[in-house]
Amino acid sequence: MSTVTTDICIIGAGPVGLFAVFEAGLLKMKCHVVDALPQVGGQLSEIYPKKPIYDIPGFPSILAGDLIKNQMEQIAPFHPTFTLGESVEDLEKLEDGSFRLVTSEKTEIFCKVVVIAGGLGCFEPRKPAIENLTSYEGGKGVNYMILDPEHYRDKRVVLAGGGDSALDWAIFLADVAKELTLVHRGTTFRGAPESAAKVSSLAEEGHMRLLLKSNVTEVHGEGQLSAVTVVPDGAEAYQIETDYFIPLFGLVPKLGPLENWGLELEKSAIVVNTVDYSTNIPGVYAIGDINTYPGKLKLILCGYHEAALMAQSAYSVINPDKKFVLKYTTVNGVPTM
Amino acid sequence: MSTVTTDICIIGAGPVGLFAVFEAGLLKMKCHVVDALPQVGGQLSEIYPKKPIYDIPGFPSILAGDLIKNQMEQIAPFHPTFTLGESVEDLEKLEDGSFRLVTSEKTEIFCKVVVIAGGLGCFEPRKPAIENLTSYEGGKGVNYMILDPEHYRDKRVVLAGGGDSALDWAIFLADVAKELTLVHRGTTFRGAPESAAKVSSLAEEGHMRLLLKSNVTEVHGEGQLSAVTVVPDGAEAYQIETDYFIPLFGLVPKLGPLENWGLELEKSAIVVNTVDYSTNIPGVYAIGDINTYPGKLKLILCGYHEAALMAQSAYSVINPDKKFVLKYTTVNGVPTM
Repeated sequence: MSTVTTDICIIGAGPVGLFAVFEAGLLKMKCHVVDALPQVGGQLSEIYPKKPIYDIPGFPSILAGDLIKNQMEQIAPFHPTFTLGESVEDLEKLEDGSFRLVTSEKTEIFCKVVVIAGGLGCFEPRKPAIENLTSYEGGKGVNYMILDPEHYRDKRVVLAGGGDSALDWAIFLADVAKELTLVHRGTTFRGAPESAAKVSSLAEEGHMRLLLKSNVTEVHGEGQLSAVTVVPDGAEAYQIETDYFIPLFGLVPKLGPLENWGLELEKSAIVVNTVDYSTNIPGVYAIGDINTYPGKLKLILCGYHEAALMAQSAYSVINPDKKFVLKYTTVNGVPTM
Repeated sequence: MSTVTTDICIIGAGPVGLFAVFEAGLLKMKCHVVDALPQVGGQLSEIYPKKPIYDIPGFPSILAGDLIKNQMEQIAPFHPTFTLGESVEDLEKLEDGSFRLVTSEKTEIFCKVVVIAGGLGCFEPRKPAIENLTSYEGGKGVNYMILDPEHYRDKRVVLAGGGDSALDWAIFLADVAKELTLVHRGTTFRGAPESAAKVSSLAEEGHMRLLLKSNVTEVHGEGQLSAVTVVPDGAEAYQIETDYFIPLFGLVPKLGPLENWGLELEKSAIVVNTVDYSTNIPGVYAIGDINTYPGKLKLILCGYHEAALMAQSAYSVINPDKKFVLKYTTVNGVPTM
């Protein structure tokens, strides 16, 4: 538990949140950045650091991880501070119009402006529509992600899914589980072809069971999961006894705690105006993939623009008496802080 | 004289116009780019190719010329075509809703969408408010830019101004002119400190005359310029005999011919809406420094965003029957054309 005081608290350390630090820094506003992930970069670092991006202006191609590295270098002159691995849970507007934020680890952040650059929000596993599925959550046999594969040693496991994580975990658990089944509704996989080939050969060699064109439709068990019902396309349903059922159907974005902060929302996005990307709460801005407005495109380069306009507006919130003058970096360089 | 047929005609080959080619290319729309300058890059190539820019996202610093080079590489897969060294003079909307543009060299361009990315427009020298000044233009002693310094060899020259071009030309002409005077209304210069120091020492050494806290207020001469009146702050006016008077007060932007196209204008900028950066003429868009809307910032990075939203909208103009789906370059790469 610690306390931070800053001009602007930026929620989200993805490319747009980091660029907000830069635009704020040009106007000599100090930033503190909070992110639930343990490192900066958001999805770019977490999900696709080695993927090339082709639509960042001026880069015919750049690896997502390199873009974040460059942006960290670009903001270094402004000495931003970070709280990583914690998510902001509470937002409170104080009497003087400033804000108090509290994170999951009870870090307190006092600031004059809040900028939500939360990308697509937190991610939650996508759950199949199976009756009673949730009653086996929480240690009773149904999991949506594999935190520690050792947990499944010498157990019976049914996986479901056709993407990379289903394939990768099937390959990994084939050696660990006592009995492994992968159920997939299609005949081809969305994941890497090499992984799909590996799963096929593991199944042929008898190290796992591969059920294609099939769906898990029911879960059974008294308190604890004991079996699932599998329905093959155009054939009769049957049961498989199992200790665990793990659907790996990807992640869906969720706004998380900020749903309760009184922000105007529309389809899981924060409504902003395009003059300064402010929300319905004065002093709170939303930029990047998390906001919505007429014409919105969820592109990194659009978030950069939104960060620039936000910073002008935040400047007048933080310096109500100063007149703002736009300065060009080609003329004035980057100020030091 | 030639004829070009394309999907989108982009007026202006600066960074924003070039990025519009990229965004259009992602949606498989063909672009033709016209610029009055003989090379691509707009101001970045013409005025400051060797200056670093610090506020392009992802580049802690990049030379203006290099940014343009990168952007040309980024759009190469889309094979844009160019008409350089010609300015668009006429815009005509044809009966089927498409457009016919005609340049200063009578090149005809037929297109479905027009994107004006004209930066600050054409540039004209800023003229001091001196009566009769314009009557000495055109070879009669008053010039606003120095095309060939040899023209002034062994002549008497009065320069006015306090920026880099006044300083640089003073230093250059001190060796060329028979008699050189620099008049500046202040005591300090806006130009590079080294240039200001050099001018001071040239004046001290008697190679030129430096008149600070002074203004040229009148021009004299029968047909041809023969003298100017100089008024020092709080002192009496006096005349200086001279062959040339060259005020170097910078350039002011001018919209040029497009002022007559029926576009809604506000303070020399084209009014657009922020949903798709369209103008009041359906099928005509304006992006970058040439447009205006509430919150507008004249930043390259904002023009990039405007180009992206414009392209979505242009797509629906050009493909009225197709449903648009946003594709990410990290997933789909860059299509080839």
